[in-house]
Amino acid sequence: MKGKFITVEGCEGVGKSTQLRLLKDFFEREGIDALFTREPGGTPVAERIREILLDKKLSVSPIIEAELFAVARNEHINNLIKPALEEGKVVICDRYIDSSLAYQGVARNLGIDRVYDINSYARDNCMPDLTIFIDMDPAHSWRKQRGTVILNDRMEGESNEFHALCYKGFKEMCKREPHRIVAIVPSEDKNATHEAIVNEIKKKGIVC
Amino acid sequence: MKGKFITVEGCEGVGKSTQLRLLKDFFEREGIDALFTREPGGTPVAERIREILLDKKLSVSPIIEAELFAVARNEHINNLIKPALEEGKVVICDRYIDSSLAYQGVARNLGIDRVYDINSYARDNCMPDLTIFIDMDPAHSWRKQRGTVILNDRMEGESNEFHALCYKGFKEMCKREPHRIVAIVPSEDKNATHEAIVNEIKKKGIVC
Repeated sequence: MKGKFITVEGCEGVGKSTQLRLLKDFFEREGIDALFTREPGGTPVAERIREILLDKKLSVSPIIEAELFAVARNEHINNLIKPALEEGKVVICDRYIDSSLAYQGVARNLGIDRVYDINSYARDNCMPDLTIFIDMDPAHSWRKQRGTVILNDRMEGESNEFHALCYKGFKEMCKREPHRIVAIVPSEDKNATHEAIVNEIKKKGIVC
Repeated sequence: MKGKFITVEGCEGVGKSTQLRLLKDFFEREGIDALFTREPGGTPVAERIREILLDKKLSVSPIIEAELFAVARNEHINNLIKPALEEGKVVICDRYIDSSLAYQGVARNLGIDRVYDINSYARDNCMPDLTIFIDMDPAHSWRKQRGTVILNDRMEGESNEFHALCYKGFKEMCKREPHRIVAIVPSEDKNATHEAIVNEIKKKGIVC
């Protein structure tokens, strides 16, 4: 495909949203046609699946959670990501398959290989050219340091142990796929972190 | 498993609901512990998936439709059907895997084998002991004969050609799995149809 696909991953409260906002400004300044999207969600059907997945009132078993994330992902790929890549756009997605591998594969204990299987459609059809992993232990996240722990959804409301396992899952993925995933340890200066991310995007030749 | 699993299938407007009501009365009269449920749905998460699947305002592609039905089915199996069967209950489900094979496999043209694959969890873990197919061409359904075509949801609102293909799909499944699926041509007398259904349930030894 003509376009390039970047995903941004990381635990809760590590500054992912801030970095995505800075990246959006960067692509706008550079005049590069970039599509910013998020998972789960991105299309009307996937956003409705998102509502189920993040609803604090619902009890969703690990396997159904993994399957619903995968269906939402397939929908997102077919209806938004692939068409944009075919048009030659840069697509930047807030969370993607590595979140499933870390959250359902490791933290929910389904196993990385099983969750990879459940996501075979994404694996066969649409893997990122570059994944930026914001490498910060959730026990030390900016949000925790500021004492502003907000539990907005079912995932954020999980235990510290759960989030520690998610982090372990991301680290495992970094080891498994070093050609694709770049871990960036964020500094207190958000602009320095932003520059490190842009640097990796340039190294991959996605922008000059 | 100790219990028995019966599914009731058929096209729109052929009297499925009426027959399920009569069956419910029958099991109550007989004093048999029976659980009546439906697809898509049956559990809080699956009912939320149902809302997506039947929403007339949403555009859902055939493959995502098939995948969502399968996830809702897995949820339904794990949280309602299997536990009830393990308790020794008779479970009667309004639509199940054959609807997916007919609607998504044939009418949406994904192919019966592909939709069977997508439903591998149901196939491996929870196939019906008996499937009653109410064998009536939707072009001649009771509802059409009475001139009361009501388009309640996204499936019912599909074209006549779509429903004709669904019927073709069910007929194909009757040929493929004659040991499991019994086709019952409904008569105008709903009680006669009911007796024919009860007769098949007795033949399978599900009730004496």
